[in-house]
Amino acid sequence: MISAAKAKLIHSLTRKKARLESGLFVAEGPKLVGELGSSFKCVYLAATREWIDSCYTGFSPEVQCVTREELCRASLQQSPQEVLALFRIPERECSMNIAGKELCLALDGVQDPGNLGTIVRIADWFGISHIFCSPETADVFNPKAIQATMGAAARVSLHYIDLKAGIESLPKGIPVYGTFMDGTDIYKSELSENGIIVMGNEGNGISPEIRQLVSKRIGIPSFPAGRPTSESLNVAVATAIVCSEFRRKTLR
Amino acid sequence: MISAAKAKLIHSLTRKKARLESGLFVAEGPKLVGELGSSFKCVYLAATREWIDSCYTGFSPEVQCVTREELCRASLQQSPQEVLALFRIPERECSMNIAGKELCLALDGVQDPGNLGTIVRIADWFGISHIFCSPETADVFNPKAIQATMGAAARVSLHYIDLKAGIESLPKGIPVYGTFMDGTDIYKSELSENGIIVMGNEGNGISPEIRQLVSKRIGIPSFPAGRPTSESLNVAVATAIVCSEFRRKTLR
Repeated sequence: MISAAKAKLIHSLTRKKARLESGLFVAEGPKLVGELGSSFKCVYLAATREWIDSCYTGFSPEVQCVTREELCRASLQQSPQEVLALFRIPERECSMNIAGKELCLALDGVQDPGNLGTIVRIADWFGISHIFCSPETADVFNPKAIQATMGAAARVSLHYIDLKAGIESLPKGIPVYGTFMDGTDIYKSELSENGIIVMGNEGNGISPEIRQLVSKRIGIPSFPAGRPTSESLNVAVATAIVCSEFRRKTLR
Repeated sequence: MISAAKAKLIHSLTRKKARLESGLFVAEGPKLVGELGSSFKCVYLAATREWIDSCYTGFSPEVQCVTREELCRASLQQSPQEVLALFRIPERECSMNIAGKELCLALDGVQDPGNLGTIVRIADWFGISHIFCSPETADVFNPKAIQATMGAAARVSLHYIDLKAGIESLPKGIPVYGTFMDGTDIYKSELSENGIIVMGNEGNGISPEIRQLVSKRIGIPSFPAGRPTSESLNVAVATAIVCSEFRRKTLR
């Protein structure tokens, strides 16, 4: 039986304030909980007998065996799966200078938690380990975002920082890429194996203060050139195409 | 004032059965309604005075001027915008043979309406005008799907057909691409300017019966090779990367 206090705590974690105060976030489902269990500190786990017997690898100090019905009552998901867990939000620090050595992403106000989670999954696929986020960017520990990462949050670190100060402090010569409607054709651009790729807000793109710090303006051409088409691509879709093209050029 | 009968009709259109019976679908928001207004037959429109005065181009036989509050009551959206319209579902026929001349997509059981809408927007960006869908694929006139197209449904036609029969009837030599985890590196593959690209279901990929009709198995390599990463990419994200790579090779 999941106590009323625990159920209340779980439901409170949809709010950022409650996550900050408790230092906890909630994750659900075998795949996500399994992947996070190997890299985040778990503090509580509720799961069905079946899941515990066949999948549990012993990473939680408190384990409750519950029925599906009990899980449904505590769950934040429309279709709850066999397991729900509470994890501690990690304290991670990383200087943006890492962009001198490897390719990183910077998110300037990506607001939709689903888009953010999808971007984390894309970063993971393309071997990008650090994402720097403006304070306005959605919180990766929002339940919708963490579910959308499908476990990729176990391998990709997100750092919420003052993006402007961070980029301004970078040593000269580290490329700062930004995507723009009128940017240079990405297929024909030279792309490096290090640096920062800035992706902007869903509605407004990259903010004016960050825009002026971009050293390389790139764009994804529509096809065929000049034909009427959609105004833009979804930010996660654009991130995918950009990351794919960076890695293709590295692999070549 | 939107009548109770009209509000009931609008809300019924979240169900596929009601859409089939009435032959109607609902779209909301200035951008979407504006774009669809130029290519679908509109039968009813409710909008604020402001929108009618500044944006309306006269495509609906029935126009109601309403307050924001009235619009909110009829709307299916969490954040209703200035306009809501009912359009007639078009009857479109197109033989899959068009794939002999141009690049087309085939969706084999893509189930999430948001993913489907995003794929339509990607197709529009990359100049793909026809998408052939298995009957199990989400309905593009589902409100969630049509909203996610952001208007791209005005330029991309979706055809719900027996995919297996359609592909089997293609003249020899028309390439049928399919994405697989173990497919040939897409960056190093020869990609044509015509043919079909099959994308599969979110959980299970391409179904066995369609899999055997694929003549070219392609895959998106993760980076760096061999590193542990996410099991897969979201189907819309994978579609974006694949379409981008096809068009890059054409543009080259």
